[in-house]
Amino acid sequence: MANSVELANPNLADMSSDFLYHLAINVPNTKDTSELQKQFGDVRVICVGGTASRMRELAIYLGKTLNIPNSAEPVDLCKQGNRYAVFKVGPVLCASHGVGSSTFSVVLHELLKLVKYAKCQDPIFIRIGTCGGVGVPPGTVVVTKDAYNGLLNNEHEIFILGERVVRPAHFHKDVMLAIVACGQQSDGFDTINANTMSTDCFYEGQGRIDGAVCHYNNEQKMQFLQRAHAKGIRNIEMEATMMASLTLQAKVKAADICVTIVNRLNGDQVCGDSEGKVPLSLEQKKNFEHRPFLIVGRYLQKLLSN
Amino acid sequence: MANSVELANPNLADMSSDFLYHLAINVPNTKDTSELQKQFGDVRVICVGGTASRMRELAIYLGKTLNIPNSAEPVDLCKQGNRYAVFKVGPVLCASHGVGSSTFSVVLHELLKLVKYAKCQDPIFIRIGTCGGVGVPPGTVVVTKDAYNGLLNNEHEIFILGERVVRPAHFHKDVMLAIVACGQQSDGFDTINANTMSTDCFYEGQGRIDGAVCHYNNEQKMQFLQRAHAKGIRNIEMEATMMASLTLQAKVKAADICVTIVNRLNGDQVCGDSEGKVPLSLEQKKNFEHRPFLIVGRYLQKLLSN
Repeated sequence: MANSVELANPNLADMSSDFLYHLAINVPNTKDTSELQKQFGDVRVICVGGTASRMRELAIYLGKTLNIPNSAEPVDLCKQGNRYAVFKVGPVLCASHGVGSSTFSVVLHELLKLVKYAKCQDPIFIRIGTCGGVGVPPGTVVVTKDAYNGLLNNEHEIFILGERVVRPAHFHKDVMLAIVACGQQSDGFDTINANTMSTDCFYEGQGRIDGAVCHYNNEQKMQFLQRAHAKGIRNIEMEATMMASLTLQAKVKAADICVTIVNRLNGDQVCGDSEGKVPLSLEQKKNFEHRPFLIVGRYLQKLLSN
Repeated sequence: MANSVELANPNLADMSSDFLYHLAINVPNTKDTSELQKQFGDVRVICVGGTASRMRELAIYLGKTLNIPNSAEPVDLCKQGNRYAVFKVGPVLCASHGVGSSTFSVVLHELLKLVKYAKCQDPIFIRIGTCGGVGVPPGTVVVTKDAYNGLLNNEHEIFILGERVVRPAHFHKDVMLAIVACGQQSDGFDTINANTMSTDCFYEGQGRIDGAVCHYNNEQKMQFLQRAHAKGIRNIEMEATMMASLTLQAKVKAADICVTIVNRLNGDQVCGDSEGKVPLSLEQKKNFEHRPFLIVGRYLQKLLSN
């Protein structure tokens, strides 16, 4: 049986109204959310990703793939908030979250409240992103199993009321396996499940030596990346631990599916070949970015036909 | 005597080319950056802030205030990168950084490399933002002195090569005092210097009780905010510790100037009155957001006339 979302925040019961500030969505009466239910109640999947333009492309692609009428020109429903873009195509929301956990956590809290108020049934959150690879060729699609932080621990650290709080950070096993199973041999690229490291800094946090500040050398960097590889980490991005942790706290299913655009064992700069010598062309980047769309599209076709 | 920026990364000397990926700025030859010097060499101030639309407004405002010719329709120089917007009006860049440290640190690393390659002289980085206030009326402009993290420590924590690294996090005293001195009694609002807390989470990290997840009550929240207040913290945002820390590492001058849009001692939701009872109107928000523009505009008039 499908269920509405019950969030782990008893204080929400005491709020008569709410305003999802960064989405610019008003909830004038939390006891009667029939308007929000009409607009969003049919949502079963919330796709999220970095940029508004990519999320718009995804919305258009899923509209076609899922045969959603009138989905060729999706409208940004949260334009007034000026921060995040949210498109709706049938039972799927596509929302942008910016780069990294800090910006993503803001919109994830508000999207979780939105699906609660709209009484969405068993919504699944799926992040679709780009990432660095660790020991896999650029263009590989990685679906995250366990999320590791920059200390190479499989957990999420967050400071709450002045205390360091450590929370588990893994994704929903069945959703992960079902998405990986959507990869096909004829795709021309691999779709794998593996562990993901996520960091709050793209340069020093990920052991890059080409940032504005760097106090280590290439050898130390390689040792770090090899330690990550030994923990089953095959990709590095900036969102997985927070997303895994917060969705576990909120008791909603979630997945993270990213395409690698560099093999960090060969270099720091974004490259299109497996040796890390040729810069990624714009065409290649578009091609790579489309790969998780393809896999998620197949997954949603199966999911929504049930 | 003015100086070019020398970044604390010896590895950069070994790179023959560079690509500022998220800005989509190519540096084909790091030994001859004359093209970048022509385009950006005159830049003396880099203003940064959350949204592209606000940074565009700031660029237009500063263009008028500083009498920069042809500045009414600034062009986004980094549109191709799809992530951040960068506008140039005379000797001032205005760049968007998104919400929070993770996204801001990416663009800050790349802007620091840009001013190094372009041989800008003594560039000053100024963040202009909105924030929550702690014991000050909404609309107060706060210029940050010391930046505190969510543990209420005046430092920045970052995970590098699997280790927890702790770095100092304060802003440049002379720049801070010079900006505060631009506030005038007739402004109708206060411009103060104070400490700032910055967090990686808008909800749990800032002690809000209206997020999707919350395991504490209002009393515990208030105790936390009072502890922050006792440390001289008068505003809370999501960028100060990282910005202070990274600009200190890079040895460039920096400042953070934010307008408060809520007094957290009165409530969590964004409000326009000092009691926290009336929601902030769009007009009030525009008015509040303009206040740091006014102060920074006066500061730049003085700075650039020297």
